[in-house]
Amino acid sequence: MSDPGIDGLVHALRRFADERDWGQFHTPKNLAMALAGEVGELLAELQWLTPEESARVMTDPEAGGRVRAEIGDVMIYLVRLADALGVDLVEAATDKLADSARRYPVERARGSAAKAPGA
Amino acid sequence: MSDPGIDGLVHALRRFADERDWGQFHTPKNLAMALAGEVGELLAELQWLTPEESARVMTDPEAGGRVRAEIGDVMIYLVRLADALGVDLVEAATDKLADSARRYPVERARGSAAKAPGA
Amino acid sequence: MSDPGIDGLVHALRRFADERDWGQFHTPKNLAMALAGEVGELLAELQWLTPEESARVMTDPEAGGRVRAEIGDVMIYLVRLADALGVDLVEAATDKLADSARRYPVERARGSAAKAPGA
Amino acid sequence: MSDPGIDGLVHALRRFADERDWGQFHTPKNLAMALAGEVGELLAELQWLTPEESARVMTDPEAGGRVRAEIGDVMIYLVRLADALGVDLVEAATDKLADSARRYPVERARGSAAKAPGA
Repeated sequence: MSDPGIDGLVHALRRFADERDWGQFHTPKNLAMALAGEVGELLAELQWLTPEESARVMTDPEAGGRVRAEIGDVMIYLVRLADALGVDLVEAATDKLADSARRYPVERARGSAAKAPGA
Repeated sequence: MSDPGIDGLVHALRRFADERDWGQFHTPKNLAMALAGEVGELLAELQWLTPEESARVMTDPEAGGRVRAEIGDVMIYLVRLADALGVDLVEAATDKLADSARRYPVERARGSAAKAPGA
Repeated sequence: MSDPGIDGLVHALRRFADERDWGQFHTPKNLAMALAGEVGELLAELQWLTPEESARVMTDPEAGGRVRAEIGDVMIYLVRLADALGVDLVEAATDKLADSARRYPVERARGSAAKAPGA
Repeated sequence: MSDPGIDGLVHALRRFADERDWGQFHTPKNLAMALAGEVGELLAELQWLTPEESARVMTDPEAGGRVRAEIGDVMIYLVRLADALGVDLVEAATDKLADSARRYPVERARGSAAKAPGA
């Protein structure tokens, strides 16, 4: 993790939006759409690759660079959205993981793809 | 940021997947699909709200709780995906933000929604 | 509906893919990702508009043309995906609508946004 | 194609929404979000399958039934969205396909996954 961490990113994104007077557009509804749009661009980078090829995508400097940039965009909008809603991203994920641990106990979930969703 | 931060979450998710032998399913391609699926569930929570209603969604304990849980799910798969690719999420977002700052200088982007995409 | 209808489109898309030897990439998994990618581009066209502005988007020749093109892309991949799965799109939608009519009877669903999902 | 075709579906969906007074929620922005939400559910059905497994998904009555239902939902919202915008779905797709045929001539695109996006 880079030093300032998520908190530094939250603040940098607030300042970025404030300087451009973009806060007016950054409602949760709009930010969720923007997040989905960026996820769509990420999918487009991986859609024709086999799962195995996707696991090697970062070894190609060009494709890897595009994937990293799309992941950066997704993170930007997710952080902005969580900030607009007053949600702590790491806490929300940690709580959800605890839920999943209860719903998918190790002994029953082991190796079963059907159980994988939601965690 | 909650104390263990993203690093703690990365490790907790690795352990969670390892214990269930789910690493075999967690290729970047599959994880990107799972990420998009969770973003779809998040959109479903906000789709019939006006932008103004979406800004107040956290004041409703039920709807707010569902939104927070969906955001947690999105974060979980984004962290897993970045981990699978060896991408540092905060660095990737910070680099992308620096790009956007160059592409949308304050003086020209001010208040213009048309310039808002990509940041 | 334009004259050849969906059947004509199904066949034109098959021929298009066959001529380019792209059938090898057109598994349901890959096509679903491509569909989601195009939906992401569609969202990006509407993300900063208010709902009211979105209702007037076709009156702007440039933005309207982009929205129409994205809708065309979404339809292309949805038709390809349904063809790959052997699903009749209109029948599948008609059956789902009949389900929704049962789940959301007129007298109870009237004017309630909360009931709108799934139909 | 089932007999009434897309036109029949357009009208059935209009009547369905009118009877429930849901037209007020069916702005293009909202419908695009609903469309993306349904595509997310479709992705969730396919996310842990290999591309090969996804090609056989309809042979499993349960999973196949869920995939068909999700495709029906996606079609419902795409038809509603196109209707709200006054776009003819088959025409928009046909025009886009003609564009793609120009951009990806057979002799150059043959067998190349990198060229596949956008068609």
